[in-house]
Amino acid sequence: MEILQTEIAVAELRAATLHASLADVSMESMNLLNQVADTYPDAISFAAGRPYEGFYDVAQIHEYLQVFCDHLRTRVGLSEAETARTLFQYGATKGIIGDLVARGLAVDEGIDVDPSSVVVTVGCQEAMFLLLRALRADGSDAVLAPSPTYVGLTGAALLADMPVLPVRTGEHGIDLDDLLVQLRRARAEGKRVRACYVTPDFANPVGVSLPLADRHRLLDIAADEDLLLLEDNAYGLLSSATDRPPTLKALDRHQRVVYLGSFAKTGMPGARVGYVVADQRVTGTSSGEVLLADELSKLKSMLTVNTSPIAQAVIGGKLLAHDCSLVAANRQETEVYERNLRQVLDGLDRRLEGRAEVTWNAPTGGFFIVLTVPFTVDDALLEHAARRHGVLFTPMHHFYGASDGFRQLRLSISTLTYERIEEGLDRLAALIDEQLGERPGERLAQFDASSAQEGAGESSPGEVA
Amino acid sequence: MEILQTEIAVAELRAATLHASLADVSMESMNLLNQVADTYPDAISFAAGRPYEGFYDVAQIHEYLQVFCDHLRTRVGLSEAETARTLFQYGATKGIIGDLVARGLAVDEGIDVDPSSVVVTVGCQEAMFLLLRALRADGSDAVLAPSPTYVGLTGAALLADMPVLPVRTGEHGIDLDDLLVQLRRARAEGKRVRACYVTPDFANPVGVSLPLADRHRLLDIAADEDLLLLEDNAYGLLSSATDRPPTLKALDRHQRVVYLGSFAKTGMPGARVGYVVADQRVTGTSSGEVLLADELSKLKSMLTVNTSPIAQAVIGGKLLAHDCSLVAANRQETEVYERNLRQVLDGLDRRLEGRAEVTWNAPTGGFFIVLTVPFTVDDALLEHAARRHGVLFTPMHHFYGASDGFRQLRLSISTLTYERIEEGLDRLAALIDEQLGERPGERLAQFDASSAQEGAGESSPGEVA
Repeated sequence: MEILQTEIAVAELRAATLHASLADVSMESMNLLNQVADTYPDAISFAAGRPYEGFYDVAQIHEYLQVFCDHLRTRVGLSEAETARTLFQYGATKGIIGDLVARGLAVDEGIDVDPSSVVVTVGCQEAMFLLLRALRADGSDAVLAPSPTYVGLTGAALLADMPVLPVRTGEHGIDLDDLLVQLRRARAEGKRVRACYVTPDFANPVGVSLPLADRHRLLDIAADEDLLLLEDNAYGLLSSATDRPPTLKALDRHQRVVYLGSFAKTGMPGARVGYVVADQRVTGTSSGEVLLADELSKLKSMLTVNTSPIAQAVIGGKLLAHDCSLVAANRQETEVYERNLRQVLDGLDRRLEGRAEVTWNAPTGGFFIVLTVPFTVDDALLEHAARRHGVLFTPMHHFYGASDGFRQLRLSISTLTYERIEEGLDRLAALIDEQLGERPGERLAQFDASSAQEGAGESSPGEVA
Repeated sequence: MEILQTEIAVAELRAATLHASLADVSMESMNLLNQVADTYPDAISFAAGRPYEGFYDVAQIHEYLQVFCDHLRTRVGLSEAETARTLFQYGATKGIIGDLVARGLAVDEGIDVDPSSVVVTVGCQEAMFLLLRALRADGSDAVLAPSPTYVGLTGAALLADMPVLPVRTGEHGIDLDDLLVQLRRARAEGKRVRACYVTPDFANPVGVSLPLADRHRLLDIAADEDLLLLEDNAYGLLSSATDRPPTLKALDRHQRVVYLGSFAKTGMPGARVGYVVADQRVTGTSSGEVLLADELSKLKSMLTVNTSPIAQAVIGGKLLAHDCSLVAANRQETEVYERNLRQVLDGLDRRLEGRAEVTWNAPTGGFFIVLTVPFTVDDALLEHAARRHGVLFTPMHHFYGASDGFRQLRLSISTLTYERIEEGLDRLAALIDEQLGERPGERLAQFDASSAQEGAGESSPGEVA
């Protein structure tokens, strides 16, 4: 009897009573991709969207901390106790490196913003959530985003109970005609469309960049239709091109653009530092007219209080060590990414020429290439590719919320060496040839499936970052 | 005409179209308290709930990082490249110090948990949001919390659209009879009460601790009524007492308790590292039965991706440097807090004896004391106290959502030195005597109001932490 009571009393929660985001297909995507990667650790991964780690050295973290503290002592004029307090204590909700972020934007992007409109966040992911939370007043609010889109945006929207309305992606990024179609359709259905999320530079997952004319037209649409543009620029600075088109924010004359910045690829993922520039005016608050950044800061105070000043100091030190230019700070890494991108594109040319049914786009920067194939690309194929061919990629349907993309796969070029790319492309070509009609089981000799491991499935981000 | 169009096109958001949390009185509380503190920087602050900073030294951050990296190299057996990758790259969503957290809980609290049920979060604040987000499936869900309560809980609930139902606070903490009354009332109104938030040890803001018998009864109620208990223990370890009652989690036999841990007071606020222990089972997910920690981890992957491994390494190093005992790590600080608490209690005795209308409680640990007075304690009085008397405290109505507490004020003892406490208590006594009936303006000579500054009102947490 006692035992029975004990059993009854043990807490058990039914999934159906938890927040709906937990049952969404996007959450499953992340888990599944990580699980496959964990189960086949020896597979060559064109899936991982993590930055290149060949130049990492723990000593850099100490060095960046020292550079930042010296800056506080000599430039800001803090005493030793004040310097220590800046790192150890709670700090301003908006962050302690907003001035350096603003200088970096001026140096690298020609974007002129006041530090007061910068909120330093726990990665770009928190910034996306804060924005969508702020913009979601009731059930009629919605946000537009290109389909396919970055899963982080989808996830933040799920957490904020904010529907994401898909816009078609064309050859060069978001299709602006379709944007107008979707906007009008949504409004006809009674929705209040608050913003359009967009990644103009080397978008994840499609890799392409929006032409300058489209950037101007997008800004005009935003002004005409009273939309905000949420510009995500995680990859733009990793380019040696001198003729890269300006960001939307650099072209923005009407404060239509909320700029989302990430230091995951240009700083280091482990700092978990990103930011949002939100210089829009909010009227009618109890304090009168304030910046959108102030409102986001209020939400942040209730979500994470402030971004770790220690983590900010590491990023601040890296900025200071390179005169606030992340382009300069990433010269070596950019060389690797551009070389890898060319190697993969050339390698695909050589291996897949003559197979007219297999096509791919040719981004000029960033981490990603999308292949289109005449066979089904689903999670079963990924698992097969990992087990039988020892190669990983990301099925594109994960970026479409499983509603489309079942003939496409994303290749990421960021983490691999020359030899691994060559070997990986051989394996990928074998998979493709197999799927194009050769008998399954042929040409599979090169990967030893016995090296596969039972993975714990522990969630580890970066696979689809 | 062109100019007019430009003016129309500039983005402007109306506050009424933003998320309701932004207009909530709790958000205003934080802002107001910070603003007063910024405006009167020379006032002696019994308001700031920040930890004592007299022992801070930047060299400690370098040392803790080194200790943690050495641990990775020698104990975990990582190569230099793997060690660097652990700090620089994305890491497991649940964190990289769950094992050290679990060891610490065993050492300091006698709590036995598996590291797999630990999710390391961006401070305890993120953990509270994740929990409330997970538990809020629809508009009928609600959570109970003692009134007055920590503003961080209120804020997290606002962001998660989760109503907080107040429970009366008695002399020793949450009133368990009222808990049952409120629970039944809420259920009669069709609400699904998911959990009760509680801070059994040295609660913020009331400072008191729940007696052992009440802890047992609370656990019984949770089992009988199918409630989770969200136990927040930010201050418990900062005690030299050998007879401190066990935490709810240590007494928990039925996995009723979700344990919220913070390193803000025991580690350092600047790391922004906290955690949640959630060993409850969730049934009916697409992966079958999982831990609640796994579900929280999924939500975290969409909110902040993972907690900065660099920040975790700093906390991990501090834990390792003290054999995972935060009680041991904080011996010096605990001595300061207990000495300050005695000094303030003794000082109130000496200065306010004979004023029967003024009473205060006598916590045996933690940061806070609550005074009850026969006059109105509102923000106007705080501003007056700052300007005319040079002393700050926290009006208790901020912890009641402005619905009650207008005759109470909270004193925090954590940041002050002996001399500042003596001087601050003199100023506080002068304010009280003035309010008790002496003519306003008398006995005000001791504070020079000309030192007050026009503050920018920049939000800086810790004032009500």
